[in-house]
Amino acid sequence: MKAIVAHAAKDLRIEEQPDPTPGPGEVLIRMEAGGICGSDLHYFNHGGFGTIRLKEPMILGHEVAGRVAALGAGVGGLQEGQLVAVSPSRPCGRCRFCFEGSQNHCLNMRFYGSAMPFPHIQGAFREVLVADASQCVPADGLTAAEAATAEPLSVVLHAAKQAGDLMGKRVLVTGCGPIGLLAVLVARNAGAVEIAATDVTAFTLDKARALGADSTVNVAETPDGLAPFANDKGHFDVHFECSGVAAALNAAVPALRPGATIVQLGLGGDMTLPVQAMTAKELVLKGSFRFHAEFATAVEMMQAGRIDVAPILTHTAPMEDAASAFELASDRTAAIKVQLAF
Amino acid sequence: MKAIVAHAAKDLRIEEQPDPTPGPGEVLIRMEAGGICGSDLHYFNHGGFGTIRLKEPMILGHEVAGRVAALGAGVGGLQEGQLVAVSPSRPCGRCRFCFEGSQNHCLNMRFYGSAMPFPHIQGAFREVLVADASQCVPADGLTAAEAATAEPLSVVLHAAKQAGDLMGKRVLVTGCGPIGLLAVLVARNAGAVEIAATDVTAFTLDKARALGADSTVNVAETPDGLAPFANDKGHFDVHFECSGVAAALNAAVPALRPGATIVQLGLGGDMTLPVQAMTAKELVLKGSFRFHAEFATAVEMMQAGRIDVAPILTHTAPMEDAASAFELASDRTAAIKVQLAF
Amino acid sequence: MKAIVAHAAKDLRIEEQPDPTPGPGEVLIRMEAGGICGSDLHYFNHGGFGTIRLKEPMILGHEVAGRVAALGAGVGGLQEGQLVAVSPSRPCGRCRFCFEGSQNHCLNMRFYGSAMPFPHIQGAFREVLVADASQCVPADGLTAAEAATAEPLSVVLHAAKQAGDLMGKRVLVTGCGPIGLLAVLVARNAGAVEIAATDVTAFTLDKARALGADSTVNVAETPDGLAPFANDKGHFDVHFECSGVAAALNAAVPALRPGATIVQLGLGGDMTLPVQAMTAKELVLKGSFRFHAEFATAVEMMQAGRIDVAPILTHTAPMEDAASAFELASDRTAAIKVQLAF
Amino acid sequence: MKAIVAHAAKDLRIEEQPDPTPGPGEVLIRMEAGGICGSDLHYFNHGGFGTIRLKEPMILGHEVAGRVAALGAGVGGLQEGQLVAVSPSRPCGRCRFCFEGSQNHCLNMRFYGSAMPFPHIQGAFREVLVADASQCVPADGLTAAEAATAEPLSVVLHAAKQAGDLMGKRVLVTGCGPIGLLAVLVARNAGAVEIAATDVTAFTLDKARALGADSTVNVAETPDGLAPFANDKGHFDVHFECSGVAAALNAAVPALRPGATIVQLGLGGDMTLPVQAMTAKELVLKGSFRFHAEFATAVEMMQAGRIDVAPILTHTAPMEDAASAFELASDRTAAIKVQLAF
Repeated sequence: MKAIVAHAAKDLRIEEQPDPTPGPGEVLIRMEAGGICGSDLHYFNHGGFGTIRLKEPMILGHEVAGRVAALGAGVGGLQEGQLVAVSPSRPCGRCRFCFEGSQNHCLNMRFYGSAMPFPHIQGAFREVLVADASQCVPADGLTAAEAATAEPLSVVLHAAKQAGDLMGKRVLVTGCGPIGLLAVLVARNAGAVEIAATDVTAFTLDKARALGADSTVNVAETPDGLAPFANDKGHFDVHFECSGVAAALNAAVPALRPGATIVQLGLGGDMTLPVQAMTAKELVLKGSFRFHAEFATAVEMMQAGRIDVAPILTHTAPMEDAASAFELASDRTAAIKVQLAF
Repeated sequence: MKAIVAHAAKDLRIEEQPDPTPGPGEVLIRMEAGGICGSDLHYFNHGGFGTIRLKEPMILGHEVAGRVAALGAGVGGLQEGQLVAVSPSRPCGRCRFCFEGSQNHCLNMRFYGSAMPFPHIQGAFREVLVADASQCVPADGLTAAEAATAEPLSVVLHAAKQAGDLMGKRVLVTGCGPIGLLAVLVARNAGAVEIAATDVTAFTLDKARALGADSTVNVAETPDGLAPFANDKGHFDVHFECSGVAAALNAAVPALRPGATIVQLGLGGDMTLPVQAMTAKELVLKGSFRFHAEFATAVEMMQAGRIDVAPILTHTAPMEDAASAFELASDRTAAIKVQLAF
Repeated sequence: MKAIVAHAAKDLRIEEQPDPTPGPGEVLIRMEAGGICGSDLHYFNHGGFGTIRLKEPMILGHEVAGRVAALGAGVGGLQEGQLVAVSPSRPCGRCRFCFEGSQNHCLNMRFYGSAMPFPHIQGAFREVLVADASQCVPADGLTAAEAATAEPLSVVLHAAKQAGDLMGKRVLVTGCGPIGLLAVLVARNAGAVEIAATDVTAFTLDKARALGADSTVNVAETPDGLAPFANDKGHFDVHFECSGVAAALNAAVPALRPGATIVQLGLGGDMTLPVQAMTAKELVLKGSFRFHAEFATAVEMMQAGRIDVAPILTHTAPMEDAASAFELASDRTAAIKVQLAF
Repeated sequence: MKAIVAHAAKDLRIEEQPDPTPGPGEVLIRMEAGGICGSDLHYFNHGGFGTIRLKEPMILGHEVAGRVAALGAGVGGLQEGQLVAVSPSRPCGRCRFCFEGSQNHCLNMRFYGSAMPFPHIQGAFREVLVADASQCVPADGLTAAEAATAEPLSVVLHAAKQAGDLMGKRVLVTGCGPIGLLAVLVARNAGAVEIAATDVTAFTLDKARALGADSTVNVAETPDGLAPFANDKGHFDVHFECSGVAAALNAAVPALRPGATIVQLGLGGDMTLPVQAMTAKELVLKGSFRFHAEFATAVEMMQAGRIDVAPILTHTAPMEDAASAFELASDRTAAIKVQLAF
């Protein structure tokens, strides 16, 4: 089988690797679609992010779906040929955080395509994958492209859970990449009464409006564009911060009501924040990291027609064009979600 | 001006009363629409409910909207001719519950059309009403009929807040009168992934499906219709109990997942409940009573097009036909929400 | 080894059984102390409770502690001779509730001394026990009697978690058996500003005051003893209902503030409740069932000297006097917690 | 009457002012005790903090208690000679935040001794004060010094409410001034199973241990003293950050468990924070600002003997020695809470 392997920044290779075979409780999956995520782009463009660096070749990819090709011993509930969304999250099930139901903080997590431990955890941009049956969520009725979007959607559903009830709330989204746009989409479907979005390109902000944002601000052109929301101690109840940029969070604080919740999804290193103002307003800054039970919910929300991710799936490329697909995905003026077809 | 006054069970009169004039901070409103609520029907059909009984003639009505006819001294932010939804909730603002932000439990509440204290609190089914400016929410862009629905919608928004985040949740609604149907509508717009509804008439269940229920059970025909949801300790995460009937709550318990929340909206006296089973499942039974800040949210949700209440507004009658309108509203096989036009 | 086996109501036998040996990951424990719980008493006195009945002989007991006698292969973190509190909770770790961190609702739970499934789950009143290493919490510094109290204490810590923050709250405890008295103790140590307790015997109410209750009501003598707390819509913020008696819950409702939380711990079958009044007050009735991560916390709270359970450990009897110990434990005028020494 | 007036940094004067008289609903209070707070010290030492600066002379002081000297018309529930704790918080009761029960964010707040609006809100370090009856909480059974501590205690009770249930939790307190020490005391009385505290002086850390901290770290001597708590993704569940120093928050992050809550009490301007690590751990950073209903609770907790603040009341000075008392209060190696006697 072929796999997409990152060796270093800008050194992406399509390599031949031995075909895996499923053991007991495992499933052989012929991959169909794989979305390129921001962390894949970090490995591709910079060889890592923050202190996390590529130290050995690593297969990228963790937003994937495919069709069941073979079932290992003892696997039930799945059928050959069935489309499945494959969760990249593989907690150990035995550590203290798994014990408490916080599997996304598992001490022994083996998340696909992650250079955090060494040896690295190999990813899922490959023609054939062996996964635990428990990672496979049947995705009947969806396209493979939609099924592969279950992963970023579950990231956003997990973040929405941190924010709590959005019905009737005023929501601000900063950063309109795939995660930010999914946040707009989820907020819209969770009953938010008003949604504003900010980014630095007209392309992404057009998408934001198409997906349900009531207003947008291009902060490259209008850095103080949120100022009108700052009267009487602020306007928004919830802020999904998806840019990872300190300026976005700083600009938002005056526009947030006392007691508002900021859900931080963007990963952007250290930030200098107006902590005194945040304290006086009793803002709540909550990190949101990955997901757990939300993965199955994401598939089901799409199956039930509650969430339609199609508008963010802007491009698909064949596996052999991976490098140019990664370049395209890095261009925030031209693409939202770029997926590979295997 | 004329008003609709209940004297006793089945004794509803249209009476002439003196026109009121607005004092400082008050607003004179020419009423346009008034929805008949379940409590109005209790007074009309039975002279009260539970221990609450009519002891003197009382103007009914608390779901109302009208147009500003005159402004008392010092009132800003409203204009003559403007449509307003009028909140029937008038907390004192000084008792310990008001102090804590639980105004719906105000010790000195004067809620329109309520026989709880004596003298009774007169209601708002009348041609002309004087209200505090703070009760009036501008409803530009809505019809008077929609604006008059702000009250039951805020009851349901308040209940939804008790339930918490509904995104991706499985929701059961028992009792599909106006409140139950609004619960279906709100759950659908809050991102519930599955909604089931039960009632005893095909008419209301058809409405439930039209408003977003994925499945319905006519428990008059199929009393054990929720049994398929009882496997593996249950299915639903949230239950809006809008019937006030103990059988509905009892039938639901096996269909609720451990940790599920039952929001009790229906007011039905004492109930015999399976408390042992509820305890072993760690169910959470939360009463929901009236509303507070949700009234303005309700108006805004309709204005923003997030919630469309039109499908439940089945009938309108002129004021002089009040008695027959009350009869119609009592017939759950023919009408959902019946409104009066003043 | 000897074990205490219930055959039917009032038919308790001390029987010889083969000694178990620990497999990989397991621990052999020489039992030292075992507390008699309400469910043990139900099996002893009535052969079961509700629909749960003894259908075959069953070893009773699930509040136990002992000393490590041998370690199975691969067990670390424990030493021979070490005192351990043994959790009777054995969830499967694989079902959907375990996956979500709600192990107390495990679909395949094997809780010691429980006649719920058939074959029954044998209990831990025995001289020698083999348990998973993960069930064993080191209890250095505690007496065996204290360590055996980790189980009921964790039931109450779990219930307290349902109630939320108790600091500055007014707490009512109804039913002053071991669980109710532990609720008094926990509320006192969680910063409750006022604690009232009710029961039907002077003996238990004396204990309640000794453990921290500010006032007590003997509802056998003064059925309306909570009436003084009913003014202005009620007084208590939190109610731990530990009696399982409908009358206790009914008497409490007028004394509870709007929005108060009732944590239902007592298991008493169906109850007729004032649901209309509970709804109008927006009371929250939460079931609390068993525990999960609280077991280790319970041991640690005792080790740190935060909770002293000694005052409720009123009697200890040797294993051979089990029958009389069960009789004593059934007498709420003479004993709180009766433990067996093995 | 005499009052303590700040004119500029280090320019504190005792000035004669006209005696006030109580109007309807008001109370005349002869002041007895007033605690010097960190914000008083900022005005005294620096003429303000951050962007908040003294622009006109202002009476300092907001932690006060005194005896009722006269009652205005219509005041009930208080008696001449009665000791009262006086809440410095005076929300308007009419703005949207008051309406929602978030009076500490009142748009028109008039908090004693605050230079935030102009004209400034004069404070309560004075011989005679007229206050609204609703600000006065009877403090029978307390000393005036204890009653004057109701204010900082309510700040900490409010912060503890942000943290939620502390029973069985591991708590870190950074910064052991009066607020940090009260956080230790409250955590201890809320059932925290382990409390660690950090500061930069032995004097304050000795107090922390005396008040219930299990361990302390002098970060002036051992900057990485929290490192032992950083294993396995961290140790503490709750962090009360009372220093307002970015280094304290940065040092704490590795020692906090995933999902831990940081309650930020210290007001220290902008901070550079490890937001990526905080996000990956899903930490929750909550600002806590002032208090509302907690003021009455604070008095009651002291009256009931649940909280004993005496150990932090290290010094008392007569009014005429105000300047030296402010100097003493600024010395964190010699004093915790310094109070003035009027």
